[in-house]
Amino acid sequence: MELHEFFLLLAILLLGARLLSEAAARLGIPSVIGELAAGLILGPSLLGWVSVNETLEILAEIGIILLLFEVGMDTDVYRLAQAGAKPVVVAVAGFGLPFVFGAGVSLYGFGLPLIASLFIGGTLTATSIGITVRVLTELRRRSSDEAQIVIGAAVLDDILGVIALAFLYQFAVMGEITPAAIGRVSLYIVLFVVLAPVGAKIVAWVIDHYDRRSASPGLLVTMVVSLIMLFSYLAHLVGAPLILGGFAAGIAMGQRFQLSVAQRLGIPFTSALNRILAAAPALSERLEHQIRPLIHVFTPIFFVMVGVSLNLSAVDWGSAFVWQLGTVLLMIAFAGKWLAGYCIRETRLRQAVIGLSMVPRGEVGLIFTQVGLSNGILNAELYAALLIVIAFTTALPPFVLKWIYAKWGHDIGLAMDSTTR
Amino acid sequence: MELHEFFLLLAILLLGARLLSEAAARLGIPSVIGELAAGLILGPSLLGWVSVNETLEILAEIGIILLLFEVGMDTDVYRLAQAGAKPVVVAVAGFGLPFVFGAGVSLYGFGLPLIASLFIGGTLTATSIGITVRVLTELRRRSSDEAQIVIGAAVLDDILGVIALAFLYQFAVMGEITPAAIGRVSLYIVLFVVLAPVGAKIVAWVIDHYDRRSASPGLLVTMVVSLIMLFSYLAHLVGAPLILGGFAAGIAMGQRFQLSVAQRLGIPFTSALNRILAAAPALSERLEHQIRPLIHVFTPIFFVMVGVSLNLSAVDWGSAFVWQLGTVLLMIAFAGKWLAGYCIRETRLRQAVIGLSMVPRGEVGLIFTQVGLSNGILNAELYAALLIVIAFTTALPPFVLKWIYAKWGHDIGLAMDSTTR
Repeated sequence: MELHEFFLLLAILLLGARLLSEAAARLGIPSVIGELAAGLILGPSLLGWVSVNETLEILAEIGIILLLFEVGMDTDVYRLAQAGAKPVVVAVAGFGLPFVFGAGVSLYGFGLPLIASLFIGGTLTATSIGITVRVLTELRRRSSDEAQIVIGAAVLDDILGVIALAFLYQFAVMGEITPAAIGRVSLYIVLFVVLAPVGAKIVAWVIDHYDRRSASPGLLVTMVVSLIMLFSYLAHLVGAPLILGGFAAGIAMGQRFQLSVAQRLGIPFTSALNRILAAAPALSERLEHQIRPLIHVFTPIFFVMVGVSLNLSAVDWGSAFVWQLGTVLLMIAFAGKWLAGYCIRETRLRQAVIGLSMVPRGEVGLIFTQVGLSNGILNAELYAALLIVIAFTTALPPFVLKWIYAKWGHDIGLAMDSTTR
Repeated sequence: MELHEFFLLLAILLLGARLLSEAAARLGIPSVIGELAAGLILGPSLLGWVSVNETLEILAEIGIILLLFEVGMDTDVYRLAQAGAKPVVVAVAGFGLPFVFGAGVSLYGFGLPLIASLFIGGTLTATSIGITVRVLTELRRRSSDEAQIVIGAAVLDDILGVIALAFLYQFAVMGEITPAAIGRVSLYIVLFVVLAPVGAKIVAWVIDHYDRRSASPGLLVTMVVSLIMLFSYLAHLVGAPLILGGFAAGIAMGQRFQLSVAQRLGIPFTSALNRILAAAPALSERLEHQIRPLIHVFTPIFFVMVGVSLNLSAVDWGSAFVWQLGTVLLMIAFAGKWLAGYCIRETRLRQAVIGLSMVPRGEVGLIFTQVGLSNGILNAELYAALLIVIAFTTALPPFVLKWIYAKWGHDIGLAMDSTTR
């Protein structure tokens, strides 16, 4: 593709995303639905003006990584630690239930081959953290207690999903899975999750030091973007999803990181450390201000590309089998995540909100189906059934969540948030 | 290339650019030299870690387009109009002298084929507006009177260069050039230059209107980025360089546009129009604030990629012919642009500064040589000689300009600037 053609494409994409998300917002529909719809309209599902290409894929991925960076900056590590085992329970239950029932129904109910059934189960395990975060942000709930659990669980789910995909793929190709390999990858990822924010924090201090002394402007934003890219690469190296790198870098850059760590260690706020810590909030603020325009430009590309990737014209809408399988899997996909919310001790409303927030499959589900399709594990009918599942699980929860918050948002269960944004 | 590999590449590229530009600034060297050096080091000239690929090319082009957008925003249309014929004279002389002497020496002095000689002449006509603007910005001279002339002339030079390339290419392929085609393209470009800012201005009013009313953040920056991309596409459609679209959009968004037009038309500032115009400076300010982080992240990619494209390992450093041709062309390249500065009525120092500012060939020269090489018009030796010319013309003027401003910047000739930034 020539340069000028790409620029026209990018203009149409950004313009379409903004027009439809503004229109959605005016109609009271979650704006992320507008961006997904822009992708469906511009993509092969309808007009066919935009198709997936390498550069758009890279820009989209930068978009979701930057969004996760922002989420990381806003994540209160202390409160996340206080939530304790809850995100873990939600993630594991929300991973296990759809996987077991999805694969089981495919294998025994529909008589599909083992490896295809496992891939279908794998697709149902995914959680699109992007969709979830956008909806919670729009409802000004991203810093709420339930959002902390959801974000923690969704990040874990993404890690579980990437590991599952790697091993299912290995199983499909080699015919066996080695438990040692699973253990090694898990260990690497745990090490990354623990060490990355500490490493990024040290880099942040260096950047802050030089940014205050630099004569040329723009040091902060370019260095932080490099850091985010580098950490995404490292995340991939240890076998984790790319977005985990952005999230880890964000946690380190957030002002809540220092305070959390200091409180945790019981360091009195008069200590020498305090002076170092006190400098950091200023860095976080300067950074948020500068990185936001990048997020505004890049994240719509991501959501539009999810819509573009969801090629609904590939679905044989007349096939009874596609609809039967699709409907059954859709029910499992909904129920599996929703029930996961009820596995932790919370108010009924919060359990519902947490479970529903985990339902969108979005891009993560699409990656599973794409890998399955391009390796011949899924045929066109199975692919079509999964596209139905992904489309409905992605599009419906934002509406339901918005409705629940509108109706019961001020009730006791959801009004206990210590902060709302 | 896989996503994570690209992100590592991008991290290294941004990090290298920033490290070397900071180091350069500390040593008193123009920082753009640091970024070009980063490209030389990371590219095939030395390490070979970074090579030109489609995505990097697109990101680099976005960088230079955004930089030209910023330059456009700062351009005072009224003062540019006051400069009158000066930029035109500098551009035409700086185009004609190197072309005629470059092609003539190649054809008669070195006995090269006609079409190769014309391509060599064409390469020498280019002016890298990016390098020039960066150096003037760093010296806080971008709003000076001489900078207005240089920017006007460099933009015109870019237009002349693209037209020349298109017609030389046509001549190389078809063996003839039709004057009617030249006239048509020139007319289109003039129409674009006149109409684009007006069109962009109308769009700006609409964006401003909705930005003030939009519930979701980021409308301004995403819409303006779309507008810039769209105008770059339109610029290409009429046969002009892509960056002209960014420049035209920038002129329309700048706060000086309204005032200039209003003053020009003699509209009293108590008129109804004044209220509309008064709203725009606020838009310009909000926009500059939001678009700057994007410029900081994207423009280094451009300058590094210029360094990467300048593959010095392709030069046969032992060839006497390459050095002879290279040296002669280098002298023509320097003298041709420098003398162009003396074709207008200005103080001696300003004439020198204006001429020298036009010397860097940078990316525009590289495009000429790349087209010539890939079409078999230039062989490896001619390509090598031109790379020498591009390397020296690009690297030397920033030093000389910095030295002149340091030595005589406060003298009468250069201290008459109405504004400095």
